[in-house]
Amino acid sequence: MAEAENILPVAGIRLASISAGIKKNGGDDLVVLSIDESSSCAATFTQNAFCAAPVTLSKKHLSQHAPRALLINSGNANAGTGESGMKNAEQSCVWLADVLHCLPEQVLPFSTGVIGEQLPMSVFQSGINLISTELSEDNWLAAAKGIMTTDTVEKAVSKTLMLDGQKITISGIAKGSGMICPNMATMLSFIASDANVDADFLQQCLSEAIEDSFNAITVDGDTSTNDACVLIATAKAGNKQIDRNSADAVVFVDELKAVCLHLAQAIVRDAEGATKFVTVAVTQAQSKSEAKKVAYTIAHSPLVKTALFASDPNWGRILAAVGRAGIEQLDISGVNIFLGDVCIVRNGAIDNNYSEEKGQSVMNQPEITIAVELNRGSDSATIWTSDLSHEYVRINAEYRT
Amino acid sequence: MAEAENILPVAGIRLASISAGIKKNGGDDLVVLSIDESSSCAATFTQNAFCAAPVTLSKKHLSQHAPRALLINSGNANAGTGESGMKNAEQSCVWLADVLHCLPEQVLPFSTGVIGEQLPMSVFQSGINLISTELSEDNWLAAAKGIMTTDTVEKAVSKTLMLDGQKITISGIAKGSGMICPNMATMLSFIASDANVDADFLQQCLSEAIEDSFNAITVDGDTSTNDACVLIATAKAGNKQIDRNSADAVVFVDELKAVCLHLAQAIVRDAEGATKFVTVAVTQAQSKSEAKKVAYTIAHSPLVKTALFASDPNWGRILAAVGRAGIEQLDISGVNIFLGDVCIVRNGAIDNNYSEEKGQSVMNQPEITIAVELNRGSDSATIWTSDLSHEYVRINAEYRT
Repeated sequence: MAEAENILPVAGIRLASISAGIKKNGGDDLVVLSIDESSSCAATFTQNAFCAAPVTLSKKHLSQHAPRALLINSGNANAGTGESGMKNAEQSCVWLADVLHCLPEQVLPFSTGVIGEQLPMSVFQSGINLISTELSEDNWLAAAKGIMTTDTVEKAVSKTLMLDGQKITISGIAKGSGMICPNMATMLSFIASDANVDADFLQQCLSEAIEDSFNAITVDGDTSTNDACVLIATAKAGNKQIDRNSADAVVFVDELKAVCLHLAQAIVRDAEGATKFVTVAVTQAQSKSEAKKVAYTIAHSPLVKTALFASDPNWGRILAAVGRAGIEQLDISGVNIFLGDVCIVRNGAIDNNYSEEKGQSVMNQPEITIAVELNRGSDSATIWTSDLSHEYVRINAEYRT
Repeated sequence: MAEAENILPVAGIRLASISAGIKKNGGDDLVVLSIDESSSCAATFTQNAFCAAPVTLSKKHLSQHAPRALLINSGNANAGTGESGMKNAEQSCVWLADVLHCLPEQVLPFSTGVIGEQLPMSVFQSGINLISTELSEDNWLAAAKGIMTTDTVEKAVSKTLMLDGQKITISGIAKGSGMICPNMATMLSFIASDANVDADFLQQCLSEAIEDSFNAITVDGDTSTNDACVLIATAKAGNKQIDRNSADAVVFVDELKAVCLHLAQAIVRDAEGATKFVTVAVTQAQSKSEAKKVAYTIAHSPLVKTALFASDPNWGRILAAVGRAGIEQLDISGVNIFLGDVCIVRNGAIDNNYSEEKGQSVMNQPEITIAVELNRGSDSATIWTSDLSHEYVRINAEYRT
């Protein structure tokens, strides 16, 4: 898996990132990703009922035309902004369509940043006029930087594979650090491949790939109003078009999953104030949703998260979280809980071989796995999360100052 | 409503509190509440599947005999302790029964403190032998202090009322500061009245009283393994026994609700690290459970809680929480949100009259109400919560050190 700096260009995709003046700190805040004709596009969006104007408009445009450009701003979410917010999102598409010579409905707008403030439209217009001259296939890393808000590092990755004798590239970028609990969608993530992929199948690939990646992470349980994930296939690689019946389909989906998982885990690693990268694995459940319910209850517990921050093997808090997860008729006498490779709870009570020293040695590590065996089925789920630190409180208390 | 210091004795109830040596800091950690014969007793317990040994044993004893004593220790939860934990809980009841001359099954044990450590049985035995000589009707405040863990203040209150021409007293104490999200139960709370109340009706009174008090508060969403609430009626006041058909029933229940609400709000006011007391009121819902779901989603959001800590009117976070609460087919164009008396969201978007100054003036206050109108029904719910501060992280990171 390549590092962010080694992200590869994708034929048919050009990008640009500039500082338009939306962010108070003067950082890059406007990104355009232009898409060549004949490309396919799939997308998933937040399930938050208060979804932002650009989310609503992107869904509408996607149902009307094949997209030719993504217009992304950071620093302002354009959420909770009512009719004015929708008009501003529409106007921004008109401006970019003018300079790119496409229809406004072929532009998908995305926003991230503070909720409840109107977009600064004059700087937006100036920025759009400027940015169109900067488009280049080599600007993926700049784009990864331009979509950041409280993120401290760019999140970008590429994978290559062979399809039908042709070398295929999949490149993706993402942003996200707080307000992270994607629900059938992600924080902002934009992924493109030069593969030739049937449009319906592309959507299926994306839905499948996010299930165990973006939909399996949480920082603070807060699902954003602006989450979106877009997958583009430009068909420039020259492979025979793949669909759900193609022999190569599984290869493409597997590599796409690897890209999504890398980006999702990169979000957790850069979680606001995080000092630990935590894997929560729940097995022997009656259903995957039951396993996820237990895993998320552990991952969202402020008491578990503060114990992780303190490197304190206060495993009673993990046990308490499992117990309150709302699993019907859970027989605790069959439950085992592990911290790393140390068994803390065996058959529902403290393991005879457990010692504080063993628990402490796991807790001191920067990457920790909490594993729970429910002993009532064969389904499982793994999710990733972070700890709760002083720094998380500071970042979110001072976010708008 | 009387302050903690003014808590009144209840005929038929004697209490004692001592330092037995369970708490590392030497504070009081062992409390006995003795109950005269002919009293009725009702109780509710945590729904956490990993409920502690004393919770399981108290439920069993309650089903067998009318209780004559409550035995409460703080500093050690006796949870996650398996068969040894159960044997220790049973042994402690035997010891107290010996000195009080009742059956072991007439003792209800309660524990609160660190999870996953065995009770220190020798200090426990010495403490029980010592404490029985200290029982007095005037020790309610001492008992309120003895059951505290991370609490910074005693939580105690009395109400008086007239029933059947007789003056009736209801006195109650509670502990709780973190791991607070009671579910059909409470943190530890012990309430007694000298009223003569039918035993079945007493349980109904308690269940009704906790619904909008202990079951309507949250600090951190973590339901404890040890929550319990006990209500005793000693029948010493001389009133004609009340049951569900009595004309006086509603008067008694109303005063009991006032006691429970005072104690529940006292827990939130003393929440770990809290700097704000926050009321979340959701109205115009299709059901009470729907209203509670929205209210708890707001109250549990780390982003809303850190904004409250910072006194930052970042109301977009409240809107985002309402949107992710999982309400089916929520029409956001009917939703209004208020911060104190300031409308922040009208018909799903920022209110035209809102200004940052108005929002800031509410946020600067120590007590804040967040009100949400869903515009889809006539049910409502009000809950109480606290903010998320640096101090919360510090307290819970350093809890065991």
